[in-house]
Amino acid sequence: MRLGILGTGMVGQTLGTKLVQIGHTVKLGSRTAGNDKAREWTQAAGKNASQGTFAEAATTGEIVFNCTAGTASLDAIRLAGAENLRGKILIDVANPLDFSKGMPPTLTICNTDSLGERIQAVLPQTKVVKALNTVNCTVMVEPGLVRGEHDVFVCGNDAEARGRVAGMLKEWFGWPSVIDLGDIKAARGTEMLLPLWLQLYSRFQSPHFNFRVVR
Amino acid sequence: MRLGILGTGMVGQTLGTKLVQIGHTVKLGSRTAGNDKAREWTQAAGKNASQGTFAEAATTGEIVFNCTAGTASLDAIRLAGAENLRGKILIDVANPLDFSKGMPPTLTICNTDSLGERIQAVLPQTKVVKALNTVNCTVMVEPGLVRGEHDVFVCGNDAEARGRVAGMLKEWFGWPSVIDLGDIKAARGTEMLLPLWLQLYSRFQSPHFNFRVVR
Repeated sequence: MRLGILGTGMVGQTLGTKLVQIGHTVKLGSRTAGNDKAREWTQAAGKNASQGTFAEAATTGEIVFNCTAGTASLDAIRLAGAENLRGKILIDVANPLDFSKGMPPTLTICNTDSLGERIQAVLPQTKVVKALNTVNCTVMVEPGLVRGEHDVFVCGNDAEARGRVAGMLKEWFGWPSVIDLGDIKAARGTEMLLPLWLQLYSRFQSPHFNFRVVR
Repeated sequence: MRLGILGTGMVGQTLGTKLVQIGHTVKLGSRTAGNDKAREWTQAAGKNASQGTFAEAATTGEIVFNCTAGTASLDAIRLAGAENLRGKILIDVANPLDFSKGMPPTLTICNTDSLGERIQAVLPQTKVVKALNTVNCTVMVEPGLVRGEHDVFVCGNDAEARGRVAGMLKEWFGWPSVIDLGDIKAARGTEMLLPLWLQLYSRFQSPHFNFRVVR
């Protein structure tokens, strides 16, 4: 499949590398077409990897991942272009974390709104599915880094799109358990999990952990 | 042990009943001494159960639980009296949930602050330990209602108090796994878990679930 990734940071590169490895064609998009980090990634990731602008990645991708920093996501989405994302699934992996005031970071949007909802609002013709934002990127593409059973969440307004994303997470990355939380409002809950996640990260000194919902 | 409980709702009554059952003496405190709910509970819970004002429960308890509704907690704590709580451990079980604007509720304090921190700020001579607020009250006192391994969290500025509370949770209620998150700022994380908890509650139609931190 042709996939677009918005964002050239560690999350975008890690997802992109894994997706190329399993046979997909990936364009990593950034604000400027000649981005150095994306060029280095492209050279390392192989012939099915390419780089371009946000708009080019959005246009190329049959499905597009938002892996930009949460505080930059809405700008990136506007540059990607609503028309280029029309009718497509956008998998929103970002968290609206503000590190500018020191540790621990705070959320720039929360409680009565979420980044996932904001993105859906500016892309009304796109099926936004929030997913994977509750685990570190190394765990996103290799859930076996965490021993035992553990979960990821999907939410979004389009039930079929949620189901498709859940299927991709299982097939592409090996996620055995994907919990469907319903519409995009549930992004409030998964984004607001970040303060606890960061506290545990600080305690464990490792990002290789996750949550299991036990019943 | 003599224990005080602030709050006569389901959380206070459930904790109180369990604590009396295992041999403690419990005073349930409310805004007014003659509270009907507290009287009914006292009659049902047996001879080691009594009722009184917030101040009387705070004075009587060697350790005191805050089980008031989160939006009423700071008022209740002021009525309980900082002097009556001086030097004691206050176990804060409350969440600052606002149900007044419909479902899902929002948090009245979050992100850059927490109810736990606010309570510690008005009770500087008290060892506030946030605990148990991430599970339903029936699970608080009977973790075996959820099958398999799962966790609760403690946080607070006094390490010895956190350790004592962790020990009580194990001994009194049977919590096998208590994760120490450090100082009271971590209450932001555990209180902000509530939107996800409520989403899962709505999905499962049962409060008998919890989170396990898997590594």
